Amino acid sequence: MNLSELGTPSLLLDKGRLMANIARMQVSAERLGVKLRPHLKTLKSAQAAEALIAAGASGITVSTLKEAAYFLDHGITDITYAVGMVPAKLAQAASLMADGADLKIMTDNLEVAQAIATAADQTGVPYRLLVEVDCGDHRGGLQADSEDLLQIAAVIGNSTAILQGLLTHAGHSYGVDERAAIEQIAAQERDAVVMAAERLRTAGHAVETVSVGSTPTALYAQDLSGVTELRAGVYTVFDMDQQARGVCTTEEIAMSVLSSVIGHNRAAGKILLDAGGLALSKDRSADQFRPEVGYGQLCQADGSIIADLYVTSVSQEHGHVRVRDESDYARFPVGSQLRVLPVHACMTAAAYDYFNLLENGQVSDRWDRVNGW
Amino acid sequence: MNLSELGTPSLLLDKGRLMANIARMQVSAERLGVKLRPHLKTLKSAQAAEALIAAGASGITVSTLKEAAYFLDHGITDITYAVGMVPAKLAQAASLMADGADLKIMTDNLEVAQAIATAADQTGVPYRLLVEVDCGDHRGGLQADSEDLLQIAAVIGNSTAILQGLLTHAGHSYGVDERAAIEQIAAQERDAVVMAAERLRTAGHAVETVSVGSTPTALYAQDLSGVTELRAGVYTVFDMDQQARGVCTTEEIAMSVLSSVIGHNRAAGKILLDAGGLALSKDRSADQFRPEVGYGQLCQADGSIIADLYVTSVSQEHGHVRVRDESDYARFPVGSQLRVLPVHACMTAAAYDYFNLLENGQVSDRWDRVNGW
Repeated sequence: MNLSELGTPSLLLDKGRLMANIARMQVSAERLGVKLRPHLKTLKSAQAAEALIAAGASGITVSTLKEAAYFLDHGITDITYAVGMVPAKLAQAASLMADGADLKIMTDNLEVAQAIATAADQTGVPYRLLVEVDCGDHRGGLQADSEDLLQIAAVIGNSTAILQGLLTHAGHSYGVDERAAIEQIAAQERDAVVMAAERLRTAGHAVETVSVGSTPTALYAQDLSGVTELRAGVYTVFDMDQQARGVCTTEEIAMSVLSSVIGHNRAAGKILLDAGGLALSKDRSADQFRPEVGYGQLCQADGSIIADLYVTSVSQEHGHVRVRDESDYARFPVGSQLRVLPVHACMTAAAYDYFNLLENGQVSDRWDRVNGW
Repeated sequence: MNLSELGTPSLLLDKGRLMANIARMQVSAERLGVKLRPHLKTLKSAQAAEALIAAGASGITVSTLKEAAYFLDHGITDITYAVGMVPAKLAQAASLMADGADLKIMTDNLEVAQAIATAADQTGVPYRLLVEVDCGDHRGGLQADSEDLLQIAAVIGNSTAILQGLLTHAGHSYGVDERAAIEQIAAQERDAVVMAAERLRTAGHAVETVSVGSTPTALYAQDLSGVTELRAGVYTVFDMDQQARGVCTTEEIAMSVLSSVIGHNRAAGKILLDAGGLALSKDRSADQFRPEVGYGQLCQADGSIIADLYVTSVSQEHGHVRVRDESDYARFPVGSQLRVLPVHACMTAAAYDYFNLLENGQVSDRWDRVNGW
């Protein structure tokens, strides 16, 4: 099918670029001597997960238990749920395990660890726990030298639950745009979690999994001694947020939104698209390093970049594009199609139930996605 | 069902507040002597549309043709699609009309009007066209004194298509927070479209529909002489964006997101929720007047406001709440539930397939939603 036959807005996934991105990270993980456990929070697609596993991934990471159930339904069993567990979700986790999932859950909270241990003892379910370590991102996680780390390990170790290991995420790698700075954060990420692992081992605990990852640190880490696995997600498709940080080029961005020009507002100096805040998301992550990007980079329908043309503002169903000069109206008539490279792929993709796969400029397939909770 | 039995994050809709908001706008429209055509882009729910029509609405407005098809499936036929039409979507519009929709479409573009006229003549489909007028918002729309307005009317008038009338939207009413300023924009909105209607009538065209609307102007308009209908959507549930502008109180906000506390990061001074950028959206519209609101206002699970507690930042599945002082950790333990009043209800709701209806603090029903394109 030709792109011109697709309704707009539609979500496109360039298969060639996707496969190249997948291969690049797999090589990076192998060079560093660690397993790769891709984060499916970006693609949320069984076919994508199958492609990742075929390329060498050792399991997957998910951001919701709904994702875990979806991927389990598609035969993928080795799953890490990398968002903080709460007691109310333990029954759902147990149900996934009963259905065959080798599920790892996570917390950084002693009371939750106690609830997991109690539930494990009462039900006999051997929950596998990763303890979250904060390596400088200051989202979740315990400090590597915290007392709670040892207490959580002791509580889990004395129960039917199993201490699987440690996990950290260098989200603060998104705050820099120089390779040397990313390399430094990757070292910090490794050091924090390896130090925490040493403390647990010294206290007599086995630590099977020592997990790190963010797309920038996963790509630029120099040495992951002591680490067992890498997690990352957005590298599979990249986006303008990553491009703004120098982590990828626009030619490596595999996801885009196909839209139609629905209006010319000459008085206001802009072209209107039918891809607005819902179709693109209101994420403005590229602002820190490239504020001109706004809500996305414009491309021709064939994917070639249009220099200096961006989605400058959005309302719910409208994308506003400030024209460069009068000639843009003739160049992009109402009814013509344009593509938008998203600012943050994970946020943009969540508005769509499926990807339209692109191969050689044609729509070759549909890959479904799981959204919501 | 109790709220504690709901998974998190979940979307809640307080039925009592919803019905009061619906009644308030219906009274406003009747006071002004115009029909009310609610915009379902916010609720996207058939049960909500039925409640609006039962309260006196004369038809509905939609933001996608998928919404139009969904509401038509639920027996609602009088539908205005208030986003610029493109020729590629005409076949879909014709199909909806063949299935019984009294569908109104919209453009502000002469070439599109010519394409509509040609398609109508070739297929015999009597497309009903509203011409969009710009009343100062500078999104879409022709200036009321533009030459293209008369040309579009002439092209449509000479074809099998039907000139239904005019439509404008005072989106710039969101840029002010004083009642006098909103009243002034409401007058400007009316004047623009009424002037355009007079020009069309002088040129010999019948103008059945003269349509205005935005939630602020619809609530505060003083005189809509010459206008036939009001469109507005977010008034049904309101949100912190509207509250920040003084258009509603927090006690009138009918939509909220139920979330769980999933972590305490004492080193960073924050509580983590399982409602992040996907569950709340990354909309920051309240920033202009209340930057402290961030990504939402925190409430207890029962809906009572927690003073000075907001979602200060988000990542994909994490909401970060800066604590007021140390006592907040004990007050909001990991595993406890909190509600978030969203910044922009239309954006937040789009992440969910259904509303959990709340009556007397209990979940009484589910109302489904249509998302995507």
